[in-house]
Amino acid sequence: MRRVRFRDPAGAVRYGEWEDGVIVFGDRTFDEDEVDVLAPCEPTKIVCVGRNYAEHADEMGNDVPDRPLLFLKGPNTVASHGSEVTLPAGKDRLDFEAELGVVIGEQAKNVAEADAMDVVAGFTCVNDLSNRDDQRRETNWVRGKAFDGAAPLGPVLASPDEVPEDAAVRSYCNGELRQDASRELMLFSVPELVAEITSYMTLEPGDVIATGTPEGVGKLADGDEVAIEVEGVGRLEHTVEIPSA
Amino acid sequence: MRRVRFRDPAGAVRYGEWEDGVIVFGDRTFDEDEVDVLAPCEPTKIVCVGRNYAEHADEMGNDVPDRPLLFLKGPNTVASHGSEVTLPAGKDRLDFEAELGVVIGEQAKNVAEADAMDVVAGFTCVNDLSNRDDQRRETNWVRGKAFDGAAPLGPVLASPDEVPEDAAVRSYCNGELRQDASRELMLFSVPELVAEITSYMTLEPGDVIATGTPEGVGKLADGDEVAIEVEGVGRLEHTVEIPSA
Repeated sequence: MRRVRFRDPAGAVRYGEWEDGVIVFGDRTFDEDEVDVLAPCEPTKIVCVGRNYAEHADEMGNDVPDRPLLFLKGPNTVASHGSEVTLPAGKDRLDFEAELGVVIGEQAKNVAEADAMDVVAGFTCVNDLSNRDDQRRETNWVRGKAFDGAAPLGPVLASPDEVPEDAAVRSYCNGELRQDASRELMLFSVPELVAEITSYMTLEPGDVIATGTPEGVGKLADGDEVAIEVEGVGRLEHTVEIPSA
Repeated sequence: MRRVRFRDPAGAVRYGEWEDGVIVFGDRTFDEDEVDVLAPCEPTKIVCVGRNYAEHADEMGNDVPDRPLLFLKGPNTVASHGSEVTLPAGKDRLDFEAELGVVIGEQAKNVAEADAMDVVAGFTCVNDLSNRDDQRRETNWVRGKAFDGAAPLGPVLASPDEVPEDAAVRSYCNGELRQDASRELMLFSVPELVAEITSYMTLEPGDVIATGTPEGVGKLADGDEVAIEVEGVGRLEHTVEIPSA
């Protein structure tokens, strides 16, 4: 099942089912362009993983970590399918990063790897938008990773059975394929990440783990159209606006 | 005015006024030990500032930064006055850090320094609890700073007029004074911090800026009683439990 959260033409927020580009809610159906598709969940925090694909660590000139490299994005970073994200002005290098997002289904602390999938509601697509100018200058990646709109999510929450173990994670910029890798290449698996993160912090329903990006990240320009695909989830599309400084 | 958020004996969450250790709500008064004092606000994120007092940067072996060093704590870190905070097990060095907390009063983005106090509801005390073992090993301070309970807040939200420009920020461990400095020693002032942070991210009502700690941070042991004082706010007290690994 692929659940979509949307604002219907009357302004009410609804949870429907996404079937072949049509949204089904009760006995009604909506075309995607009749409604506002919202982020599929409302995270209290997004726990992100850096350098979780060896070839991406390498392209950024980094070694692979001996345990998950974690960083945080707040709820201010959420953006939805179909939105225009306004990026920080006056930066040289703003990048897209395609990622598999894990959406938490229930409050979770100290979860063992073997039980981790019990607290996972499903998967979504994440674009881990990155402002390299600041990221490279700061001790913690806050200006670099946690600016408003830095985490487009969506378009749906797909139940785990929809997403194969070797699901492809892809990005496109202006229609051109830029990243394409299997999630099997992750250095730390979803259960390992859930266990490690919940050994320090409680995850809440709707929280998201962004599991890291494969190689091929690239620079964005004003007006670019970005798409993030996760096989079994679908295709998250948004544009970017980069104001002149 | 000092506003206190509390759960009354019937279980309802109320906002009262704190007057000489007594909580006034409508025509009723409660003693502090009759109710559960809650954190004075419900942050969607806590934006913390590192190395904002030169002598603390020096005691940790760091230079002072050329712009605010920012890091994030999620809502999972909130703990309240009077609570026992369970710290991560098996660590050598868990520290208290007394800080002035700025509580945001309205949604704020791109706020100029001159207007910054307009979006500030008031001040509270923060203990920026720190797990140095992990902080020293990680690129972003997540295990080190964003574990459950890592941000005791309270006991009240004091309006800005209650807190002098040179308010003392103090910590006590088991009754012994350990930190004592004026907030005038901050390298970046509250208006500078609000302007810098909101140039990247929207702050929401209830969000907190933890403005950094002065010198004198120290190590905690199981059962320690910690108090954080900010002149004009009051005294945040909590204990810590450190489970054996």
